[in-house]
Amino acid sequence: MIHKPLEPNATIGILGGGQLGRMLSVAASRLGLKTHIFDPSTDPPAGHVAHSVTTAKFSDTEALKAFANQVHIVTYEFENIPTKTLDFLEAHCTIRPGREALRVSQDRLTEKLFLQSLGLNTANFVDITGPTTLQTALRSLGTPAILKTRQFGYDGKGQIRLSDPDDIPPDVNSLLDRPSILEQVVHFEREISVIAARGFDGSIASFDPGENIHQDGILRTTTVPARITVHQKTEAVLHTAKILNALNYVGVIGVEFFVTPNNLIINEFAPRVHNSGHWTQNGCAVDQFEQHIRAIANWPLSDGHRHNDVVMENIIGDTTDVVSRSATDTLSALHLYGKVEAKLGRKMGHINWISPKN
Amino acid sequence: MIHKPLEPNATIGILGGGQLGRMLSVAASRLGLKTHIFDPSTDPPAGHVAHSVTTAKFSDTEALKAFANQVHIVTYEFENIPTKTLDFLEAHCTIRPGREALRVSQDRLTEKLFLQSLGLNTANFVDITGPTTLQTALRSLGTPAILKTRQFGYDGKGQIRLSDPDDIPPDVNSLLDRPSILEQVVHFEREISVIAARGFDGSIASFDPGENIHQDGILRTTTVPARITVHQKTEAVLHTAKILNALNYVGVIGVEFFVTPNNLIINEFAPRVHNSGHWTQNGCAVDQFEQHIRAIANWPLSDGHRHNDVVMENIIGDTTDVVSRSATDTLSALHLYGKVEAKLGRKMGHINWISPKN
Repeated sequence: MIHKPLEPNATIGILGGGQLGRMLSVAASRLGLKTHIFDPSTDPPAGHVAHSVTTAKFSDTEALKAFANQVHIVTYEFENIPTKTLDFLEAHCTIRPGREALRVSQDRLTEKLFLQSLGLNTANFVDITGPTTLQTALRSLGTPAILKTRQFGYDGKGQIRLSDPDDIPPDVNSLLDRPSILEQVVHFEREISVIAARGFDGSIASFDPGENIHQDGILRTTTVPARITVHQKTEAVLHTAKILNALNYVGVIGVEFFVTPNNLIINEFAPRVHNSGHWTQNGCAVDQFEQHIRAIANWPLSDGHRHNDVVMENIIGDTTDVVSRSATDTLSALHLYGKVEAKLGRKMGHINWISPKN
Repeated sequence: MIHKPLEPNATIGILGGGQLGRMLSVAASRLGLKTHIFDPSTDPPAGHVAHSVTTAKFSDTEALKAFANQVHIVTYEFENIPTKTLDFLEAHCTIRPGREALRVSQDRLTEKLFLQSLGLNTANFVDITGPTTLQTALRSLGTPAILKTRQFGYDGKGQIRLSDPDDIPPDVNSLLDRPSILEQVVHFEREISVIAARGFDGSIASFDPGENIHQDGILRTTTVPARITVHQKTEAVLHTAKILNALNYVGVIGVEFFVTPNNLIINEFAPRVHNSGHWTQNGCAVDQFEQHIRAIANWPLSDGHRHNDVVMENIIGDTTDVVSRSATDTLSALHLYGKVEAKLGRKMGHINWISPKN
């Protein structure tokens, strides 16, 4: 089966119009491709730099059908797209990365069982089905542990940290009405992530792992290179490749690892471009966004070579301070997302602080 | 007079929707700003990545007025915009860089007299008013010389090279029905250009000069750093600063120099971002497009620091070969313009070949 690359001026449909869709649009434009954003909200950030925008609900089958007919291929910028939307779209067009990657990553339990089936390490966990089980689970798993909803959690949302089986706070009830799992807290030396791509021909290319610092469940900085051994780097990339192959994946993936003294433990993966890969915009000739577009458009992948060291710093909430800090710095590249309202905890942009590669 | 920076999500109007407008749009998006393209042609390249597009003639005052009312500031991506369009627009909104820079650069005679008034060197030339004068001018100036229309020439168009006063080819007549000048051919060691910016507060920042190779009047490659002495580099930047100050300029300018054994001779300047500045996209944290947006939006300028060596190669006409050469090269960044038809001599994109800074 030979698949030709997308022709110049072909249109890529993107489900979701946030900052990731925005930067995917810009990357597509560099390759002479157009984008069409599908998003339920009005004036999505990606719409400012896209060729077309459809404003409609993900349940609007008429709008989805029209969208599918106007694009050559569909991708997505966030993983919590309703399953029904994807099933409907898939009857009309090709979606990359495919349904399987989304199905697995949309549910923490499914994801962990999938990773374990590949022989990869995850945090110890227990499937929770009710309050009694939670107390039992906390005793058997040990504390501290984190109760997480199986679906629709992101940026630390849908999570509660528990430290005593005999003193379970009442706000767990807000989570327990949904399917959840209890995860043992991993005592790690550092967190890293691997951003890698798999092409339609099965080729795989990885960027250098980045070292992440989270606060309150939100990524604050990614530093490249990460302070890990060559062995750890090799392992992390091989684990990522295993996931890509098992899912018959086409596109960019982001895999988060805990680095412990003994091994690498996978926290989770996102079947899309990833916040911890934003450093590639100023560290590589081809960034993660263009790499994703190349993969889904059947273009040759870049090998992910890095030509600079980078510290990526997220701009969260108020932008004034960090923007003025960066505005005149010789080696800082600012990336704002065009969001109007600076809500607490909202990602407004990021800065890549560049330094010569050591 | 204090001018505040443009607010996030403000809209910049851009006259012209070619590749320069396209890359200006992308740069504006990085700073959280929107763009509105005004272009007479349908489906202009910049429209693919702009928030809004107006398709109307530059003489359509209704459309111009509506455009002016929807944007916070106006800039342009090519210098051959009709004077009447600018006069009309200026009554409704601010244009940066201003009218004066356009007025001077739109006419080769005006431009040369302006440069000489600043004490800067230009090629020797004669104002041509008719065929008799042409022969006389050729004798007094010496050959070879180049007959150039005073207005609307670009990429080698509107130019004829003449080598014998007694054998003037008949096709000069196609130029002589328009105001023209005759320029002595400069015997140069190399061609360089300076891309620099001036902010609203009068601050000036220059990128490192690039060394240009033209073929048939079209730029083929720009290499940074240029092979010039520190003295030549300083001179070139100072000459550029002189021009910026004299024009009370706000924005990015491109100035082309001939480097001779004795001095620097200014070929011409363009009051806009410039093809020979495309290397900054992969050589600097803030590229020429973002620098222009920063200047016209009253943001602080970047100092133009370069962190990589770059060879920029234009993709002219058929794109197939060069795209496949670049697609898998570790250190090449591809930039296509989304043009559908690959005409002979048409600029379809460019590649930045990156190498570590020496």
